[in-house]
Amino acid sequence: MRALARAISLVEKRDPAVRELEDALRSDARIPGVAGFTGAPGTGKSTLVDAVVAFLRKQGSSVAVIATDPNSPFTGGAILGDRIRMQRHALDEKVFIRSMGARGHLGGLSLATREAIRLLGAFGFDQVILETVGVGQSELEVAAVADTTVLVLTPNLGDSVQMIKAGILEIADVFAVNKSDIDGHARVVAELRTMINMGPKTVWRPPIVPTIATRAEGVDKLWEAVLQHRKHLESSGRAHELVERRLRDETAEVAAEIARQRARRALEEDAALAERLFSDGTPYRTAEEILDRKR
Amino acid sequence: MRALARAISLVEKRDPAVRELEDALRSDARIPGVAGFTGAPGTGKSTLVDAVVAFLRKQGSSVAVIATDPNSPFTGGAILGDRIRMQRHALDEKVFIRSMGARGHLGGLSLATREAIRLLGAFGFDQVILETVGVGQSELEVAAVADTTVLVLTPNLGDSVQMIKAGILEIADVFAVNKSDIDGHARVVAELRTMINMGPKTVWRPPIVPTIATRAEGVDKLWEAVLQHRKHLESSGRAHELVERRLRDETAEVAAEIARQRARRALEEDAALAERLFSDGTPYRTAEEILDRKR
Repeated sequence: MRALARAISLVEKRDPAVRELEDALRSDARIPGVAGFTGAPGTGKSTLVDAVVAFLRKQGSSVAVIATDPNSPFTGGAILGDRIRMQRHALDEKVFIRSMGARGHLGGLSLATREAIRLLGAFGFDQVILETVGVGQSELEVAAVADTTVLVLTPNLGDSVQMIKAGILEIADVFAVNKSDIDGHARVVAELRTMINMGPKTVWRPPIVPTIATRAEGVDKLWEAVLQHRKHLESSGRAHELVERRLRDETAEVAAEIARQRARRALEEDAALAERLFSDGTPYRTAEEILDRKR
Repeated sequence: MRALARAISLVEKRDPAVRELEDALRSDARIPGVAGFTGAPGTGKSTLVDAVVAFLRKQGSSVAVIATDPNSPFTGGAILGDRIRMQRHALDEKVFIRSMGARGHLGGLSLATREAIRLLGAFGFDQVILETVGVGQSELEVAAVADTTVLVLTPNLGDSVQMIKAGILEIADVFAVNKSDIDGHARVVAELRTMINMGPKTVWRPPIVPTIATRAEGVDKLWEAVLQHRKHLESSGRAHELVERRLRDETAEVAAEIARQRARRALEEDAALAERLFSDGTPYRTAEEILDRKR
Protein backbone atom coordinates (compact mmCIF):
# COMPACT_ATOMS: atom_id res chain seq x y z
CA MET A 1 0.00 0.00 0.00
CA ARG A 2 2.77 2.41 0.87
CA ALA A 3 4.67 1.66 -2.32
CA LEU A 4 1.51 2.34 -4.30
CA ALA A 5 0.79 5.59 -2.46
CA ARG A 6 4.35 6.70 -3.08
CA ALA A 7 4.18 5.75 -6.77
CA ILE A 8 1.01 7.83 -7.22
CA SER A 9 2.71 10.75 -5.51
CA LEU A 10 5.55 10.53 -8.04
CA VAL A 11 2.99 10.63 -10.84
CA GLU A 12 1.32 13.66 -9.31
CA LYS A 13 4.60 15.49 -8.93
CA ARG A 14 5.72 14.59 -12.45
CA ASP A 15 8.87 13.17 -10.99
CA PRO A 16 11.36 12.03 -13.66
CA ALA A 17 11.33 8.64 -11.95
CA VAL A 18 7.90 8.02 -13.46
CA ARG A 19 9.42 6.86 -16.71
CA GLU A 20 11.51 4.25 -14.96
CA LEU A 21 8.49 3.19 -12.96
CA GLU A 22 6.54 2.87 -16.20
CA ASP A 23 9.24 0.71 -17.74
CA ALA A 24 9.44 -1.50 -14.67
CA LEU A 25 5.69 -2.08 -14.75
CA ARG A 26 5.51 -2.50 -18.50
CA SER A 27 4.72 -6.19 -18.52
CA ASP A 28 2.04 -5.66 -15.91
CA ALA A 29 0.36 -2.82 -17.74
CA ARG A 30 -3.08 -4.29 -17.31
CA ILE A 31 -5.69 -1.59 -17.16
CA PRO A 32 -8.50 -2.39 -14.74
CA GLY A 33 -12.14 -1.62 -15.42
CA VAL A 34 -12.95 1.89 -14.27
CA ALA A 35 -16.42 2.91 -13.10
CA GLY A 36 -16.89 6.65 -12.68
CA PHE A 37 -19.53 7.97 -10.28
CA THR A 38 -20.73 11.49 -10.77
CA GLY A 39 -23.69 13.65 -9.77
CA ALA A 40 -24.62 16.80 -7.93
CA PRO A 41 -23.66 17.26 -4.28
CA GLY A 42 -26.31 15.91 -1.93
CA THR A 43 -27.31 12.98 -4.11
CA GLY A 44 -25.64 10.54 -1.73
CA LYS A 45 -22.93 9.70 -4.24
CA SER A 46 -20.23 9.06 -1.63
CA THR A 47 -22.51 6.82 0.43
CA LEU A 48 -23.37 4.91 -2.73
CA VAL A 49 -19.69 4.48 -3.62
CA ASP A 50 -19.11 3.23 -0.07
CA ALA A 51 -21.88 0.68 -0.45
CA VAL A 52 -20.42 -0.46 -3.77
CA VAL A 53 -17.00 -0.87 -2.16
CA ALA A 54 -18.52 -3.00 0.62
CA PHE A 55 -20.40 -5.07 -1.96
CA LEU A 56 -17.28 -5.70 -4.04
CA ARG A 57 -15.24 -6.62 -0.97
CA LYS A 58 -17.86 -9.17 0.01
CA GLN A 59 -17.41 -10.69 -3.44
CA GLY A 60 -13.68 -10.91 -2.81
CA SER A 61 -12.57 -8.17 -5.24
CA SER A 62 -9.97 -5.59 -4.35
CA VAL A 63 -11.13 -2.02 -4.91
CA ALA A 64 -9.41 1.32 -5.34
CA VAL A 65 -11.32 4.57 -5.07
CA ILE A 66 -9.94 7.77 -6.56
CA ALA A 67 -11.88 10.81 -5.43
CA THR A 68 -11.17 13.82 -7.62
CA ASP A 69 -12.00 17.39 -6.79
CA PRO A 70 -11.10 19.74 -9.63
CA ASN A 71 -11.70 22.71 -7.38
CA SER A 72 -9.37 21.61 -4.67
CA PRO A 73 -5.74 22.61 -4.73
CA PHE A 74 -4.91 19.79 -2.36
CA THR A 75 -3.84 16.40 -3.41
CA GLY A 76 -2.49 13.21 -2.00
CA GLY A 77 -3.99 13.49 1.43
CA ALA A 78 -7.32 12.65 2.91
CA ILE A 79 -9.65 15.42 1.83
CA LEU A 80 -13.36 15.40 1.03
CA GLY A 81 -14.41 13.59 4.17
CA ASP A 82 -12.31 10.62 3.20
CA ARG A 83 -10.89 10.40 6.66
CA ILE A 84 -14.07 8.72 7.81
CA ARG A 85 -14.05 6.26 4.96
CA MET A 86 -10.39 5.57 5.38
CA GLN A 87 -10.93 4.73 8.99
CA ARG A 88 -13.63 2.26 8.08
CA HIS A 89 -11.35 0.50 5.63
CA ALA A 90 -8.10 1.23 7.45
CA LEU A 91 -7.34 -2.41 8.23
CA ASP A 92 -8.44 -3.70 4.85
CA GLU A 93 -5.44 -4.19 2.58
CA LYS A 94 -7.70 -4.71 -0.41
CA VAL A 95 -9.17 -1.22 -0.32
CA PHE A 96 -7.18 1.77 -1.48
CA ILE A 97 -8.60 5.29 -1.25
CA ARG A 98 -6.94 8.33 -2.66
CA SER A 99 -7.96 11.94 -3.14
CA MET A 100 -6.65 13.96 -6.03
CA GLY A 101 -7.02 17.71 -6.37
CA ALA A 102 -6.71 19.42 -9.69
CA ARG A 103 -4.68 22.55 -9.40
CA GLY A 104 -1.40 20.86 -8.77
CA HIS A 105 -1.53 18.96 -12.05
CA LEU A 106 -0.08 20.82 -14.95
CA GLY A 107 -1.22 18.23 -17.42
CA GLY A 108 -4.75 18.31 -16.05
CA LEU A 109 -6.56 16.06 -13.68
CA SER A 110 -7.41 13.44 -16.31
CA LEU A 111 -3.76 12.79 -17.11
CA ALA A 112 -2.79 12.25 -13.49
CA THR A 113 -5.88 10.12 -12.93
CA ARG A 114 -5.13 7.91 -15.91
CA GLU A 115 -1.59 7.34 -14.76
CA ALA A 116 -2.81 6.50 -11.28
CA ILE A 117 -5.26 4.00 -12.78
CA ARG A 118 -2.46 2.29 -14.68
CA LEU A 119 -0.51 2.03 -11.45
CA LEU A 120 -3.52 0.57 -9.66
CA GLY A 121 -3.77 -2.03 -12.42
CA ALA A 122 -0.11 -2.90 -12.13
CA PHE A 123 -0.51 -3.27 -8.37
CA GLY A 124 -3.26 -5.78 -9.00
CA PHE A 125 -6.45 -3.96 -8.11
CA ASP A 126 -9.50 -5.63 -9.61
CA GLN A 127 -11.83 -2.65 -9.67
CA VAL A 128 -11.25 1.06 -9.79
CA ILE A 129 -13.92 3.55 -8.86
CA LEU A 130 -13.55 7.17 -9.78
CA GLU A 131 -15.66 9.60 -7.81
CA THR A 132 -16.01 13.29 -8.54
CA VAL A 133 -16.68 16.01 -6.08
CA GLY A 134 -18.01 19.33 -7.21
CA VAL A 135 -19.66 20.38 -10.39
CA GLY A 136 -18.88 21.70 -13.83
CA GLN A 137 -16.00 20.27 -15.75
CA SER A 138 -15.55 17.36 -13.37
CA GLU A 139 -18.34 15.27 -14.89
CA LEU A 140 -16.79 15.54 -18.29
CA GLU A 141 -13.41 14.59 -16.87
CA VAL A 142 -14.90 11.46 -15.35
CA ALA A 143 -16.49 10.49 -18.65
CA ALA A 144 -13.13 10.96 -20.36
CA VAL A 145 -11.36 8.62 -17.96
CA ALA A 146 -13.97 6.06 -16.87
CA ASP A 147 -15.14 3.15 -18.99
CA THR A 148 -18.59 3.32 -17.48
CA THR A 149 -20.05 6.54 -16.15
CA VAL A 150 -22.71 6.17 -13.46
CA LEU A 151 -24.78 9.31 -13.01
CA VAL A 152 -26.32 9.54 -9.55
CA LEU A 153 -29.62 11.42 -9.32
CA THR A 154 -32.28 11.71 -6.65
CA PRO A 155 -36.06 12.06 -6.84
CA ASN A 156 -35.46 15.74 -6.28
CA LEU A 157 -36.54 17.29 -9.58
CA GLY A 158 -33.99 20.06 -9.31
CA ASP A 159 -31.12 17.66 -9.86
CA SER A 160 -32.38 16.33 -13.11
CA VAL A 161 -33.33 19.70 -14.55
CA GLN A 162 -29.86 20.99 -13.69
CA MET A 163 -28.28 17.96 -15.28
CA ILE A 164 -30.28 18.26 -18.46
CA LYS A 165 -29.30 21.90 -18.72
CA ALA A 166 -25.67 21.07 -18.28
CA GLY A 167 -25.82 18.42 -20.98
CA ILE A 168 -24.60 15.95 -18.44
CA LEU A 169 -27.22 13.28 -18.95
CA GLU A 170 -25.62 12.49 -22.27
CA ILE A 171 -22.49 11.17 -20.65
CA ALA A 172 -24.33 8.64 -18.46
CA ASP A 173 -23.95 4.94 -19.26
CA VAL A 174 -25.94 3.94 -16.18
CA PHE A 175 -28.39 5.99 -14.12
CA ALA A 176 -28.63 5.44 -10.37
CA VAL A 177 -31.75 7.01 -8.90
CA ASN A 178 -30.66 7.14 -5.29
CA LYS A 179 -32.84 7.84 -2.24
CA SER A 180 -35.51 5.96 -4.10
CA ASP A 181 -37.53 5.62 -0.90
CA ILE A 182 -38.53 9.27 -0.97
CA ASP A 183 -41.34 10.89 -2.92
CA GLY A 184 -41.01 11.59 -6.61
CA HIS A 185 -38.97 8.51 -7.35
CA ALA A 186 -41.35 7.12 -9.97
CA ARG A 187 -41.58 10.48 -11.70
CA VAL A 188 -37.82 10.85 -12.08
CA VAL A 189 -37.55 7.33 -13.48
CA ALA A 190 -40.34 8.10 -15.96
CA GLU A 191 -38.68 11.37 -16.94
CA LEU A 192 -35.38 9.67 -17.54
CA ARG A 193 -37.01 6.94 -19.59
CA THR A 194 -38.76 9.49 -21.81
CA MET A 195 -35.52 11.32 -22.26
CA ILE A 196 -33.59 8.19 -23.17
CA ASN A 197 -36.30 7.29 -25.67
CA MET A 198 -36.19 10.73 -27.21
CA GLY A 199 -32.40 10.71 -27.43
CA PRO A 200 -30.29 9.38 -30.27
CA LYS A 201 -30.83 5.70 -31.07
CA THR A 202 -27.71 4.06 -29.78
CA VAL A 203 -26.86 0.40 -29.30
CA TRP A 204 -26.45 0.84 -25.56
CA ARG A 205 -29.53 2.08 -23.76
CA PRO A 206 -28.58 3.36 -20.30
CA PRO A 207 -30.36 1.29 -17.64
CA ILE A 208 -32.01 3.10 -14.71
CA VAL A 209 -31.33 1.51 -11.33
CA PRO A 210 -33.15 2.62 -8.15
CA THR A 211 -30.91 2.56 -5.08
CA ILE A 212 -31.04 3.40 -1.37
CA ALA A 213 -27.39 3.85 -0.56
CA THR A 214 -27.85 4.22 3.20
CA ARG A 215 -29.36 0.71 3.35
CA ALA A 216 -27.17 -0.70 0.55
CA GLU A 217 -30.31 -1.48 -1.43
CA GLY A 218 -30.03 -1.87 -5.20
CA VAL A 219 -26.24 -1.98 -5.09
CA ASP A 220 -26.10 -5.50 -6.55
CA LYS A 221 -28.35 -4.43 -9.46
CA LEU A 222 -26.28 -1.30 -9.96
CA TRP A 223 -23.05 -3.24 -10.18
CA GLU A 224 -24.68 -5.71 -12.54
CA ALA A 225 -25.58 -2.79 -14.82
CA VAL A 226 -21.96 -1.59 -14.71
CA LEU A 227 -20.71 -5.06 -15.64
CA GLN A 228 -23.24 -5.31 -18.45
CA HIS A 229 -22.03 -2.03 -19.87
CA ARG A 230 -18.45 -3.24 -19.60
CA LYS A 231 -19.41 -6.41 -21.48
CA HIS A 232 -21.06 -4.28 -24.13
CA LEU A 233 -17.84 -2.28 -24.49
CA GLU A 234 -15.86 -5.49 -24.89
CA SER A 235 -18.15 -7.17 -27.39
CA SER A 236 -18.57 -4.07 -29.54
CA GLY A 237 -14.80 -3.52 -29.75
CA ARG A 238 -15.26 -0.20 -28.04
CA ALA A 239 -13.17 -1.21 -25.00
CA HIS A 240 -10.13 -1.81 -27.18
CA GLU A 241 -10.73 1.49 -28.96
CA LEU A 242 -10.96 3.34 -25.65
CA VAL A 243 -7.69 1.91 -24.37
CA GLU A 244 -5.91 2.96 -27.54
CA ARG A 245 -7.43 6.40 -27.68
CA ARG A 246 -6.48 7.04 -24.06
CA LEU A 247 -2.91 5.95 -24.58
CA ARG A 248 -2.70 8.33 -27.54
CA ASP A 249 -4.16 11.19 -25.51
CA GLU A 250 -1.90 10.43 -22.60
CA THR A 251 1.19 10.37 -24.80
CA ALA A 252 0.23 13.74 -26.30
CA GLU A 253 -0.27 15.22 -22.82
CA VAL A 254 2.99 13.81 -21.50
CA ALA A 255 4.77 15.19 -24.58
CA ALA A 256 3.20 18.60 -23.89
CA GLU A 257 4.36 18.47 -20.30
CA ILE A 258 7.92 17.50 -21.25
CA ALA A 259 8.04 20.30 -23.83
CA ARG A 260 6.76 22.81 -21.28
CA GLN A 261 9.52 21.84 -18.87
CA ARG A 262 12.18 21.92 -21.57
CA ALA A 263 11.10 25.40 -22.63
CA ARG A 264 11.23 26.70 -19.07
CA ARG A 265 14.62 25.18 -18.46
CA ALA A 266 16.04 26.48 -21.74
CA LEU A 267 14.87 30.02 -20.96
CA GLU A 268 16.42 29.81 -17.51
CA GLU A 269 19.75 28.41 -18.62
CA ASP A 270 20.25 30.25 -21.89
CA ALA A 271 20.36 33.98 -21.18
CA ALA A 272 20.89 34.92 -24.83
CA LEU A 273 17.79 33.00 -25.89
CA ALA A 274 15.72 34.65 -23.18
CA GLU A 275 17.01 38.11 -24.15
CA ARG A 276 16.08 37.54 -27.76
CA LEU A 277 12.58 36.43 -26.74
CA PHE A 278 12.11 39.51 -24.57
CA SER A 279 13.30 41.95 -27.22
CA ASP A 280 11.58 40.34 -30.21
CA GLY A 281 8.40 39.10 -28.54
CA THR A 282 8.39 35.87 -30.55
CA PRO A 283 7.23 32.92 -28.44
CA TYR A 284 6.41 30.73 -31.47
CA ARG A 285 9.83 30.98 -32.99
CA THR A 286 11.49 30.53 -29.59
CA ALA A 287 9.40 27.47 -28.72
CA GLU A 288 10.21 25.81 -32.04
CA GLU A 289 13.87 26.55 -31.63
CA ILE A 290 13.93 24.99 -28.18
CA LEU A 291 12.17 21.82 -29.32
CA ASP A 292 14.41 21.42 -32.35
CA ARG A 293 17.62 21.59 -30.38
CA LYS A 294 19.72 18.48 -30.33
CA ARG A 295 19.61 16.85 -26.95
CA MET B 1 -9.97 45.89 -38.88
CA ARG B 2 -10.53 42.91 -41.12
CA ALA B 3 -6.85 42.05 -41.22
CA LEU B 4 -6.76 42.16 -37.43
CA ALA B 5 -9.87 40.00 -37.08
CA ARG B 6 -8.37 37.50 -39.48
CA ALA B 7 -5.04 37.49 -37.65
CA ILE B 8 -6.76 36.76 -34.34
CA SER B 9 -8.65 33.91 -36.00
CA LEU B 10 -5.35 32.40 -37.10
CA VAL B 11 -4.12 32.62 -33.53
CA GLU B 12 -7.26 30.93 -32.26
CA LYS B 13 -6.99 28.14 -34.79
CA ARG B 14 -3.28 27.64 -34.09
CA ASP B 15 -2.64 28.05 -37.77
CA PRO B 16 1.02 27.44 -38.72
CA ALA B 17 0.95 30.88 -40.33
CA VAL B 18 1.04 32.40 -36.83
CA ARG B 19 4.80 32.04 -36.67
CA GLU B 20 5.25 33.99 -39.88
CA LEU B 21 2.82 36.59 -38.65
CA GLU B 22 4.82 36.82 -35.43
CA ASP B 23 8.05 37.32 -37.36
CA ALA B 24 6.49 39.96 -39.57
CA LEU B 25 5.27 41.92 -36.55
CA ARG B 26 8.46 41.44 -34.59
CA SER B 27 9.66 45.02 -34.72
CA ASP B 28 6.19 46.24 -33.70
CA ALA B 29 5.89 43.91 -30.74
CA ARG B 30 4.73 46.64 -28.44
CA ILE B 31 2.48 45.28 -25.73
CA PRO B 32 -0.33 47.65 -24.79
CA GLY B 33 -1.54 48.19 -21.26
CA VAL B 34 -4.22 45.65 -20.40
CA ALA B 35 -6.98 46.34 -17.88
CA GLY B 36 -9.01 43.29 -16.91
CA PHE B 37 -12.58 43.70 -15.65
CA THR B 38 -14.05 40.88 -13.64
CA GLY B 39 -16.90 40.33 -11.20
CA ALA B 40 -20.05 38.32 -10.69
CA PRO B 41 -22.86 38.40 -13.25
CA GLY B 42 -25.33 41.20 -12.53
CA THR B 43 -22.77 43.67 -11.21
CA GLY B 44 -23.09 45.79 -14.35
CA LYS B 45 -19.60 44.92 -15.50
CA SER B 46 -20.43 45.10 -19.22
CA THR B 47 -22.14 48.46 -18.86
CA LEU B 48 -19.13 49.72 -16.95
CA VAL B 49 -16.75 48.50 -19.64
CA ASP B 50 -18.94 50.26 -22.22
CA ALA B 51 -18.73 53.50 -20.25
CA VAL B 52 -14.95 53.15 -20.02
CA VAL B 53 -14.73 52.61 -23.79
CA ALA B 54 -16.80 55.74 -24.40
CA PHE B 55 -14.60 57.69 -21.95
CA LEU B 56 -11.39 56.56 -23.63
CA ARG B 57 -12.73 57.36 -27.10
CA LYS B 58 -13.57 60.87 -25.95
CA GLN B 59 -9.93 61.21 -24.90
CA GLY B 60 -8.87 60.14 -28.38
CA SER B 61 -7.50 56.69 -27.46
CA SER B 62 -8.22 53.62 -29.56
CA VAL B 63 -9.64 50.73 -27.53
CA ALA B 64 -9.92 46.99 -28.03
CA VAL B 65 -12.22 44.88 -25.86
CA ILE B 66 -11.71 41.14 -25.57
CA ALA B 67 -14.63 39.44 -23.87
CA THR B 68 -13.75 35.95 -22.70
CA ASP B 69 -16.18 33.29 -21.68
CA PRO B 70 -14.42 30.16 -20.46
CA ASN B 71 -17.70 28.29 -20.47
CA SER B 72 -18.56 29.05 -24.03
CA PRO B 73 -17.43 26.77 -26.80
CA PHE B 74 -17.91 29.53 -29.33
CA THR B 75 -15.25 31.89 -30.39
CA GLY B 76 -14.61 34.56 -32.93
CA GLY B 77 -18.15 35.74 -33.36
CA ALA B 78 -20.35 38.11 -31.50
CA ILE B 79 -21.51 36.28 -28.42
CA LEU B 80 -22.34 37.52 -24.95
CA GLY B 81 -24.66 40.29 -26.03
CA ASP B 82 -21.81 41.89 -27.92
CA ARG B 83 -23.99 42.41 -30.93
CA ILE B 84 -25.55 45.39 -29.23
CA ARG B 85 -22.22 46.86 -28.32
CA MET B 86 -20.82 46.20 -31.72
CA GLN B 87 -23.69 48.04 -33.31
CA ARG B 88 -23.05 51.05 -31.14
CA HIS B 89 -19.42 51.16 -32.18
CA ALA B 90 -19.86 49.69 -35.65
CA LEU B 91 -18.76 52.83 -37.47
CA ASP B 92 -15.92 53.59 -35.10
CA GLU B 93 -12.64 52.33 -36.56
CA LYS B 94 -10.89 52.94 -33.26
CA VAL B 95 -12.95 50.40 -31.33
CA PHE B 96 -12.39 46.69 -31.77
CA ILE B 97 -14.54 44.15 -29.93
CA ARG B 98 -13.92 40.46 -29.95
CA SER B 99 -15.38 37.51 -28.07
CA MET B 100 -13.28 34.51 -27.25
CA GLY B 101 -14.65 31.22 -25.95
CA ALA B 102 -12.47 28.77 -24.12
CA ARG B 103 -13.16 25.27 -25.28
CA GLY B 104 -11.68 25.66 -28.70
CA HIS B 105 -8.29 26.60 -27.32
CA LEU B 106 -6.06 23.67 -26.63
CA GLY B 107 -3.45 25.83 -25.00
CA GLY B 108 -6.01 27.44 -22.75
CA LEU B 109 -7.78 30.73 -22.95
CA SER B 110 -4.92 32.75 -21.47
CA LEU B 111 -2.53 31.73 -24.23
CA ALA B 112 -4.90 32.73 -27.02
CA THR B 113 -5.75 35.95 -25.20
CA ARG B 114 -2.11 36.89 -24.77
CA GLU B 115 -1.42 36.33 -28.42
CA ALA B 116 -4.44 38.39 -29.37
CA ILE B 117 -3.19 41.19 -27.12
CA ARG B 118 0.19 41.19 -28.84
CA LEU B 119 -1.58 41.47 -32.17
CA LEU B 120 -3.68 44.36 -30.89
CA GLY B 121 -0.49 46.09 -29.82
CA ALA B 122 1.10 45.53 -33.21
CA PHE B 123 -2.01 46.96 -34.89
CA GLY B 124 -1.58 50.08 -32.81
CA PHE B 125 -4.35 49.90 -30.21
CA ASP B 126 -3.67 52.18 -27.27
CA GLN B 127 -5.75 50.40 -24.67
CA VAL B 128 -6.90 46.83 -24.28
CA ILE B 129 -9.74 45.86 -21.99
CA LEU B 130 -10.26 42.28 -21.06
CA GLU B 131 -13.70 41.37 -19.77
CA THR B 132 -14.71 38.03 -18.32
CA VAL B 133 -18.09 36.47 -18.41
CA GLY B 134 -19.00 33.75 -16.00
CA VAL B 135 -17.45 32.68 -12.78
CA GLY B 136 -14.84 30.38 -11.37
CA GLN B 137 -11.52 30.05 -13.09
CA SER B 138 -12.15 33.05 -15.33
CA GLU B 139 -11.20 35.61 -12.68
CA LEU B 140 -7.86 33.96 -12.19
CA GLU B 141 -7.31 33.86 -15.94
CA VAL B 142 -7.92 37.60 -16.15
CA ALA B 143 -5.46 38.26 -13.36
CA ALA B 144 -2.88 36.16 -15.18
CA VAL B 145 -3.20 38.14 -18.39
CA ALA B 146 -4.14 41.68 -17.33
CA ASP B 147 -1.72 44.22 -15.91
CA THR B 148 -4.41 45.75 -13.77
CA THR B 149 -7.38 43.75 -12.52
CA VAL B 150 -10.52 45.74 -11.76
CA LEU B 151 -12.95 43.83 -9.59
CA VAL B 152 -16.54 45.04 -10.01
CA LEU B 153 -18.78 44.67 -6.97
CA THR B 154 -22.19 46.06 -6.04
CA PRO B 155 -23.67 47.15 -2.72
CA ASN B 156 -25.35 43.76 -2.70
CA LEU B 157 -23.66 42.00 0.20
CA GLY B 158 -23.98 38.60 -1.44
CA ASP B 159 -21.42 39.51 -4.09
CA SER B 160 -18.71 40.41 -1.67
CA VAL B 161 -19.23 37.41 0.59
CA GLN B 162 -19.07 35.15 -2.44
CA MET B 163 -15.93 36.87 -3.62
CA ILE B 164 -14.22 36.60 -0.27
CA LYS B 165 -15.04 32.92 -0.16
CA ALA B 166 -13.64 32.37 -3.59
CA GLY B 167 -10.42 34.15 -2.68
CA ILE B 168 -11.04 36.50 -5.53
CA LEU B 169 -10.62 39.75 -3.66
CA GLU B 170 -6.91 39.04 -3.48
CA ILE B 171 -6.48 39.43 -7.21
CA ALA B 172 -8.02 42.92 -7.33
CA ASP B 173 -5.74 45.89 -8.04
CA VAL B 174 -8.69 48.28 -8.15
CA PHE B 175 -12.18 47.89 -6.71
CA ALA B 176 -15.15 49.37 -8.55
CA VAL B 177 -18.25 49.51 -6.35
CA ASN B 178 -20.84 49.87 -9.07
CA LYS B 179 -24.51 50.81 -8.67
CA SER B 180 -23.29 53.04 -5.89
CA ASP B 181 -26.61 54.89 -5.90
CA ILE B 182 -28.40 52.00 -4.26
CA ASP B 183 -28.56 51.15 -0.56
CA GLY B 184 -25.68 49.50 1.19
CA HIS B 185 -23.02 51.27 -0.80
CA ALA B 186 -21.27 52.81 2.21
CA ARG B 187 -21.25 49.48 4.02
CA VAL B 188 -19.59 47.60 1.18
CA VAL B 189 -16.92 50.30 0.89
CA ALA B 190 -16.31 50.08 4.64
CA GLU B 191 -16.13 46.29 4.48
CA LEU B 192 -13.63 46.41 1.66
CA ARG B 193 -11.53 48.98 3.46
CA THR B 194 -11.39 46.81 6.59
CA MET B 195 -10.45 43.84 4.51
CA ILE B 196 -7.69 45.68 2.69
CA ASN B 197 -6.35 46.92 6.04
CA MET B 198 -6.40 43.43 7.46
CA GLY B 199 -4.69 41.95 4.42
CA PRO B 200 -0.97 41.65 3.81
CA LYS B 201 0.94 44.93 3.88
CA THR B 202 1.78 45.54 0.27
CA VAL B 203 3.18 48.62 -1.46
CA TRP B 204 0.09 48.94 -3.63
CA ARG B 205 -3.15 49.45 -1.70
CA PRO B 206 -6.11 48.79 -3.99
CA PRO B 207 -8.21 51.96 -4.28
CA ILE B 208 -12.00 51.69 -4.02
CA VAL B 209 -13.88 53.67 -6.65
CA PRO B 210 -17.68 54.14 -6.52
CA THR B 211 -19.30 54.10 -9.96
CA ILE B 212 -22.73 54.31 -11.56
CA ALA B 213 -22.12 52.71 -14.93
CA THR B 214 -25.54 53.48 -16.36
CA ARG B 215 -24.89 57.22 -15.94
CA ALA B 216 -21.14 56.94 -16.63
CA GLU B 217 -20.46 58.37 -13.18
CA GLY B 218 -17.09 57.70 -11.58
CA VAL B 219 -15.62 56.38 -14.81
CA ASP B 220 -12.95 59.10 -14.95
CA LYS B 221 -11.88 58.31 -11.37
CA LEU B 222 -11.89 54.60 -12.16
CA TRP B 223 -9.63 55.04 -15.16
CA GLU B 224 -7.36 57.30 -13.14
CA ALA B 225 -6.99 54.50 -10.60
CA VAL B 226 -6.12 52.08 -13.42
CA LEU B 227 -3.47 54.47 -14.73
CA GLN B 228 -2.07 54.98 -11.24
CA HIS B 229 -1.71 51.24 -10.83
CA ARG B 230 -0.01 51.05 -14.21
CA LYS B 231 2.40 53.78 -13.13
CA HIS B 232 3.09 51.85 -9.95
CA LEU B 233 3.91 48.77 -12.03
CA GLU B 234 6.29 50.80 -14.16
CA SER B 235 8.09 52.56 -11.33
CA SER B 236 8.49 49.43 -9.24
CA GLY B 237 9.95 47.48 -12.15
CA ARG B 238 7.04 45.11 -11.93
CA ALA B 239 5.78 45.96 -15.44
CA HIS B 240 9.02 44.81 -16.99
CA GLU B 241 8.96 41.67 -14.88
CA LEU B 242 5.40 40.91 -15.96
CA VAL B 243 6.20 41.24 -19.66
CA GLU B 244 9.13 38.87 -19.29
CA ARG B 245 7.25 36.34 -17.20
CA ARG B 246 4.39 36.28 -19.69
CA LEU B 247 6.68 35.75 -22.63
CA ARG B 248 8.26 32.84 -20.75
CA ASP B 249 4.86 31.35 -19.93
CA GLU B 250 3.67 31.83 -23.46
CA THR B 251 6.74 30.16 -24.92
CA ALA B 252 6.25 27.20 -22.59
CA GLU B 253 2.59 26.90 -23.61
CA VAL B 254 3.36 27.17 -27.31
CA ALA B 255 6.07 24.51 -26.89
CA ALA B 256 3.52 22.27 -25.15
CA GLU B 257 1.06 22.77 -27.98
CA ILE B 258 3.65 22.00 -30.67
CA ALA B 259 4.71 18.85 -28.77
CA ARG B 260 1.10 17.74 -28.43
CA GLN B 261 0.59 18.07 -32.18
CA ARG B 262 3.86 16.29 -32.96
CA ALA B 263 2.92 13.39 -30.71
CA ARG B 264 -0.50 13.01 -32.33
CA ARG B 265 0.97 13.14 -35.80
CA ALA B 266 3.72 10.66 -34.97
CA LEU B 267 1.22 8.16 -33.57
CA GLU B 268 -0.93 8.53 -36.68
CA GLU B 269 1.88 8.18 -39.17
CA ASP B 270 4.06 5.59 -37.47
CA ALA B 271 2.06 2.41 -37.03
CA ALA B 272 4.92 0.52 -35.37
CA LEU B 273 5.31 3.21 -32.73
CA ALA B 274 1.58 3.19 -32.01
CA GLU B 275 1.54 -0.61 -31.77
CA ARG B 276 4.39 -0.55 -29.27
CA LEU B 277 2.58 2.06 -27.18
CA PHE B 278 -0.61 0.00 -27.16
CA SER B 279 1.12 -3.25 -26.20
CA ASP B 280 3.53 -1.80 -23.63
CA GLY B 281 1.35 0.94 -22.14
CA THR B 282 4.28 3.36 -21.88
CA PRO B 283 3.22 6.92 -22.73
CA TYR B 284 6.24 8.50 -21.02
CA ARG B 285 8.80 6.58 -23.01
CA THR B 286 6.81 7.07 -26.23
CA ALA B 287 6.46 10.82 -25.68
CA GLU B 288 10.19 11.20 -25.05
CA GLU B 289 11.02 9.17 -28.10
CA ILE B 290 8.81 11.34 -30.29
CA LEU B 291 10.29 14.58 -29.00
CA ASP B 292 13.86 13.35 -29.40
CA ARG B 293 13.44 12.37 -33.03
CA LYS B 294 15.49 14.31 -35.53
CA ARG B 295 13.30 16.60 -37.54
